Parts: sequence; C-alpha cells; structure tokens
Amino acid sequence: LNPKTEKPFLLIDEDRCKKNILRMAERARSFGCEYRPHFKTHQSHEIGQWVRNEGVTGITVSSTSMALYFAADGWDDITIAFPFYDGMLPDLVQLQGNAELRLFLHSPDQIAILDENLDKPVRFYIEIDAGYGRSGIKHSDTDTIDRLISAAESSANCRFHGFYIHDGGTYAARGRKEIVTLVSGSLQALLDLGAKYPKARLSLGDTPSASVCDGLKDVHEMTPGNFVFYDWMQTRIGSCEPDDVALFAVLPVAQKISGDKAIVHGGAVHMSKDYIMQNGAKNFGQIVDISTGTTEPVNGCYLSALSQEHGTVSGYSHLGMNERIVVCPIHSCLTANLFDHYRTKDGRIIKKRILS
Amino acid sequence: LNPKTEKPFLLIDEDRCKKNILRMAERARSFGCEYRPHFKTHQSHEIGQWVRNEGVTGITVSSTSMALYFAADGWDDITIAFPFYDGMLPDLVQLQGNAELRLFLHSPDQIAILDENLDKPVRFYIEIDAGYGRSGIKHSDTDTIDRLISAAESSANCRFHGFYIHDGGTYAARGRKEIVTLVSGSLQALLDLGAKYPKARLSLGDTPSASVCDGLKDVHEMTPGNFVFYDWMQTRIGSCEPDDVALFAVLPVAQKISGDKAIVHGGAVHMSKDYIMQNGAKNFGQIVDISTGTTEPVNGCYLSALSQEHGTVSGYSHLGMNERIVVCPIHSCLTANLFDHYRTKDGRIIKKRILS
Repeated sequence: LNPKTEKPFLLIDEDRCKKNILRMAERARSFGCEYRPHFKTHQSHEIGQWVRNEGVTGITVSSTSMALYFAADGWDDITIAFPFYDGMLPDLVQLQGNAELRLFLHSPDQIAILDENLDKPVRFYIEIDAGYGRSGIKHSDTDTIDRLISAAESSANCRFHGFYIHDGGTYAARGRKEIVTLVSGSLQALLDLGAKYPKARLSLGDTPSASVCDGLKDVHEMTPGNFVFYDWMQTRIGSCEPDDVALFAVLPVAQKISGDKAIVHGGAVHMSKDYIMQNGAKNFGQIVDISTGTTEPVNGCYLSALSQEHGTVSGYSHLGMNERIVVCPIHSCLTANLFDHYRTKDGRIIKKRILS
Repeated sequence: LNPKTEKPFLLIDEDRCKKNILRMAERARSFGCEYRPHFKTHQSHEIGQWVRNEGVTGITVSSTSMALYFAADGWDDITIAFPFYDGMLPDLVQLQGNAELRLFLHSPDQIAILDENLDKPVRFYIEIDAGYGRSGIKHSDTDTIDRLISAAESSANCRFHGFYIHDGGTYAARGRKEIVTLVSGSLQALLDLGAKYPKARLSLGDTPSASVCDGLKDVHEMTPGNFVFYDWMQTRIGSCEPDDVALFAVLPVAQKISGDKAIVHGGAVHMSKDYIMQNGAKNFGQIVDISTGTTEPVNGCYLSALSQEHGTVSGYSHLGMNERIVVCPIHSCLTANLFDHYRTKDGRIIKKRILS
C-alpha cells in the first residue's frame, strides 16, 4: 500500500472470508440443513465461487437484477427473496432460460399472473412476517396460507415449496443468548407451520441466528448472507468476534482539524449512512488496527459524521498522525454495495456488481 | 409507464431542473457573482450541458474521480472542493493535461508536495471552517492563512486564489429567514477575510443560502449543487417549494401488509439511509402525488423504514391500492448517487456517473 497514490477502497481479508464461508457450510451440514446463502452482501462472482467450492448449488438474492448477475456466472437454482410484484416478470422470463427459480408469493391472484406470464414452473415460498413489521404474512393467517396452497394445487406453473422467515428482529440482540431468545418466536412459528403443513420446507434466514443458534437443526434450509464479511454491527449483536470481520474500508486522512478530529475521504457514498448508537453517539464506522493480524478496535475512535464525501473521525489523537485509517463498516452489505471491486491484502482486485 | 414492467427508477422533471438551473444562473448574474456550480448532485454529462447552456464555464466537484468524469466531457476549469491529500496526485497530473484546477490547501507543506509533483500551476482556496465541525481552517487562524499565502508567493505551482466556505449549518434552518440568519456568521467571516486580504476571491457554497440569501451579492463566487434537483429536506429548510423539486424515485408496491403499511421495492440501495425527523418519526422519503403537474405531499404517507431492498410505507391507506408510489427523496444527492441513469417524463434515458 502506497499512501501517496491511494483513494478510498475496500479491503477484503480473503482468509477470513473463506473461513466464514466454510464455518457456515459446516454448521449447515451439522444441522442437516440445505444451505442456500444470500448473495446480496458480496455481490461478486468470485466470492460466489468460493461458496460454490463448499458444495453450494442453490443461492438466494434480493432482486431479479441480482439474480441475472449470478445466473450469468452459471448459478441455476436461485431464490428471489423479495415479495413478487409484476415488474419482475420480464426478468423472470429471461432467468427461466437458464435457472430454476423460487419466488415469494403472498396472494392467490399472483399465481394466476405467473400462470399467464411464465412458460416454465417456479417454486414459491410463503414468507412469514417475523413480527418486526417488514414483508410477509402472519403465521396465524392460515386463511391466506390455505388459499395460496390450494391455488397452487391447480396451477400450471406454481409449486408451493415452504415457509420462509427472515427475522430482522435478531439485530436488536446484544449477545449470543439474546439472539437465541429473540429468534425463538420465529423458530416456533416455523415449527408450528411445519406441524400443520408437513410437506412444507422450513427456511430461516438471518446471519445472527444462523451464526449462533443451534435450534436451526430443526428447520430444512438456512439462507444467511452478511456472515461472509460480518461487520461492526454483527460484533455488537454477538454474531461474531471482531477477528471474524473480513471487510474494511481504507480511507485517506485529508485534514487534521481542531479538537480531536480529522477529516477523511470517506463519506456517505463510500460507507452508507447506516450507524449504531454507541456510548450515546452515532457511530458510522469503527476505526480499527489490523496491522498485527487481529482486529483491534481503537477505543474512542470512530466515524462520528458523514456527508457526501467527507467523514469526520472523532478520537483521532488515539491514532497518531496516520495517513490513512482502517474502518470496520457498521453494515457491510450497504458499504460493499457502494464499490465496484474489493482489493485483497496482496493487492489483487476482486470485481463485483454495482447496483443501478 | 407500464407498471407491469417497471422496477425502481429515478424520474427527472426536465422542465423543473432547467428552471432551477436558469434561476440560479440569474441570481448569480444579478449578484455579479462568478457562478461555479457543484456537479456532485447530478453527476451527469447531459445535465452538465444544460448548465453550460446558461454560460457556465467553471464547475465544482468533490473528488478527483468526478473531475475526470467531467473533464472527459470538455470541462476545463474545475474546483476540487475537498481537502487536498497525497492520494489525489496521480489524478491531478492526469487532469492537468486538459483542465485548469483549483484545489483546497490547508498546510504549507502541501505546497511543497504540489511543487514537486505537478508540472503545471494550480490555484488554491483556503477553506474556512463554517463552525459546524467539518473541514477547513478557523477564520481566526490568520497564522496558518499567512503561512499558506507566504508559501504560495515563492511556489512554482501554487497560486493563492481565495477563501471558500461551505456552510452546512444552514441545513438546520426551517424557513428563509433562518437560512439568512444562520449563514450570516459565515458571510461576515468571509467579508472580514476579504477586508484583511483584499486580493482574495470570496466563495460561498451551500444551496440554502444561494437560493434565498441576497447577501451573496457581497461575495465573488457561488457554488451551490443540490439546487438542480432540490429534495424534501430542502423544502423543509426553506430553500425551495415542493413544486421546485425535480427528482423523484418511482417505486413498485410489492405487498400490502397488516395495519396501514405496504412494502415497496425501494430500500437503502435506492434511497440511501438519510432521513429527517418529522412529527417525531424518521422520514426516509416523502410520498407525493405529481399526477397533476404539481408536487402534492400525501399527508401521513412516507417511507418509515428501509432495509437493503425493502422500503416500508406508512400511511399507505391514503394512497389507495396503487401499483407504484412516487417518492420525493430526503437527500437527492445521495439518492441520485445510487443510480446510473435518470428517466425523463417522456421515457428518455439520461446517463450519469455511478460511483466506485
């Protein structure tokens, strides 16, 4: 690394990333779970290949555009984990040329639409609302569930596959025990549905519970995504240790300003504006020292404000007058989304998709 | 617009955008100000051309990468409004092949670095900290200012040009009077510096004050950026009326959920996670009705939560069962940054730069 020629970039720790991929594959194997990891975090053909090397054949994505990107690299068994809407249809037709698809349906009239517009069959999940107010159907809404399953029985194209929960509620946990407690309601909801609909496959998604909750041995599939990189938020939740984090933003220091602050080239267009509250303040990125092979948080040193291109580092005196800082992102999915490549420690470029 | 084939996109109101560009050019002319608008908001060659059509020849950007993008379209007088750091050097050398540059310097040793590494002269501003804690030097720090000006006098490449303030503090205003009051300190600081350094050019940046503060007649340059589109935040600040906003996100409704909510395809990767507090809640995007040619906020209907691809609409019952919603972005700079094109009302595509 030559600070004289560097602009902001994302550094990937390839060894840690591969370890995270292997560890999650082993957890899935030990549970007897089908492992269909979510690729929205890395959005990279090459990192997808590292996952493929662990025997994975089916993946999860969050948009039809992302499905097309991975289908172009030979993935042919793809779950689109977002509620189906009509605007997906042109991409779905294109995707069915090469891939088997799984969709999220929530209304019987969508089955009629898919029968009319698709040429080949799709499987579908009924997404169950984990209670934190995002998408899905309440698990108690067996009326809608029954109508969907019944409509599928007479459908030309739509095959009911199972129930899917992404329990974003686990992100409120602080520690492994709380993760297990917080996900227990979603897990029980899935198991209740499994008892009532014994042919349904049960799928659970989030990285915190996939990382620490052994109760996943009772479901059929797991689809975590963030675990490939983890991030500072995940260390606070309890999903991982700082030494598991595999993605960092390397940001040039542009100006030491008054007080204990510095300005870095690293703003909302590099980090995203996701933050966590820490010691009563917004933390947009945790400054770390990775020079000795571990991830050492620099106490009191963090990104305290972001504008479009500027980042404000608070606690800068703890760093000395470095020419660049290393930041553990708060939410690696959103940070990764803002760059078109990663750089490995030995300077190799790993290309990725950039959204549009 | 065919809801059956639509994914999320950005809609530009070309007439409004051109009106905003013309209005600001006329304000600058009436003040006798040099008008060097900031291009970080639109990041588009074509919209840059609309600005050029108003006689603009010098522009402002926030990174060397963005400068390269606009230099490729023939812009040859570019201010890079970010504190200089060594990592900019390779791009600066490349830019100097075609463009005259203006930089922000804050330390005399940077003049030595530029003398050693550049082949052609550059002008520089001394950025003055507007007191809200981002980059710049305090206006009272005449010691550093004098040392910079003195070093420039014996420099081969660096010519002192003037003082620059971006007063982000005006974003706290709620109404035109408050904008004028809030910017008055920065304006006075510039005028004081102008009295002490009479050859210095005085430059002021932010969209709120450029939009409403007639005191800008006393400075030499103005560099607003956001005004080409404005956004919901600017309507709250008082910089513009809702009918001036020229950029909207059009998002497909994916699922009506329980209560008064709906899920749209439009998350943090489309809108950014910037928000304002409104009626005690986070507003990540204001739902509007633009069907009659004006911008009518739909009361109580807004994006109340965003994850990576999901947006949660609160107050959805006010909308009826629309197949898509139109969102006035909270911060158009960050929303625009996430798309590689705009679409006009008549369906024409306007390409733009996407960051990396």
